Amino acid sequence: MQENFLCGTSEITGCRFSIYPMTDRFVDVILSALKEVDTSKVWMETDDVSTCVRGRSIHVFDVVKAIYLEAAKHGDHVVFNGTFSNGCPGDTAGDAYLAENEERANEEKSAGINQGVAVQFALYPMGIPAYMNVIMDQVELAKDQGTFTKGVHYASRLDGDAHAVFKTLEDAFESCRKSDSTHIVMTVNMSANSPSKKGAE
Amino acid sequence: MQENFLCGTSEITGCRFSIYPMTDRFVDVILSALKEVDTSKVWMETDDVSTCVRGRSIHVFDVVKAIYLEAAKHGDHVVFNGTFSNGCPGDTAGDAYLAENEERANEEKSAGINQGVAVQFALYPMGIPAYMNVIMDQVELAKDQGTFTKGVHYASRLDGDAHAVFKTLEDAFESCRKSDSTHIVMTVNMSANSPSKKGAE
Repeated sequence: MQENFLCGTSEITGCRFSIYPMTDRFVDVILSALKEVDTSKVWMETDDVSTCVRGRSIHVFDVVKAIYLEAAKHGDHVVFNGTFSNGCPGDTAGDAYLAENEERANEEKSAGINQGVAVQFALYPMGIPAYMNVIMDQVELAKDQGTFTKGVHYASRLDGDAHAVFKTLEDAFESCRKSDSTHIVMTVNMSANSPSKKGAE
Repeated sequence: MQENFLCGTSEITGCRFSIYPMTDRFVDVILSALKEVDTSKVWMETDDVSTCVRGRSIHVFDVVKAIYLEAAKHGDHVVFNGTFSNGCPGDTAGDAYLAENEERANEEKSAGINQGVAVQFALYPMGIPAYMNVIMDQVELAKDQGTFTKGVHYASRLDGDAHAVFKTLEDAFESCRKSDSTHIVMTVNMSANSPSKKGAE
């Protein structure tokens, strides 16, 4: 089976991501975080470079947020870098659990963690000439939600509480799925507890 | 000036990337690496989330490879995560140095560093319906160069010496620029010195 650049049918949302704890204890930080998260509603596989989560969009976002919050909550400088994807024409139907309800398995626990984050994200609605319009609509969405800080080269910046920022990311992604593009990609680089001054050179 | 999701004219290639050294000394590792690299042929700006390099494609790839090799050469588990971009219709002409020759400022020094790497990368040729064909052509290119390992969900995997792998990435990106798409995006997640067994769960 050829799996190059597979991305997800419209039913399956996927996220291939890595968590980077900038500490000698990076293995412990990641494994401890994973232990705290209920991943029963998604398919998940980790290799030596990244982790792939696949399932219904709502559960993919729930699991990703939970893993990141659990990894960052002890104060280490922890970064999430991932690509969300839905609708790639070359995707396979497998490796995903879809027969699940709407209840987010980790939201109650995640809600108890407050964490400020800085994000640079970009949207790539594939296959249509008018993709820039789709992108700009999501910038407006982020502005309306109060998380948008500014545009930078190749990305838009969001700042704020992790829950507000993840909501913007999920809403922007879901909004793109309603556009003319049937294959949506979103890259996210999220940083917490950085020793660098916010916005500093 | 509105800079949301700006990407680069066809003359300007950009890369927004982060280097993640998984060690308590992560600041030193990054700053020491930067000191070793000649960045005079590119525009470069670092904020608290990532670094953006812009200029002619050849020099962007030269600088990015050099920074990564300098950061990884001491044996720490170091990851590069970045997005290369060329040709976004919304880009500005500024923030790039283009009047440079073809000589890579860091290649001679970089060539002295041997480093095995594992990469997951993905290509996003924007704005055209036939983008999957453009992507598949680059998979063939990677196979021909001997760096392609396998396809995974949402990415293709490359393994090997950093110089061979960077050559494939650069060649694939440049080959896409010759396609019908005038806006090319490439995401790269590169890992060196991981304690995880290669390909292990």
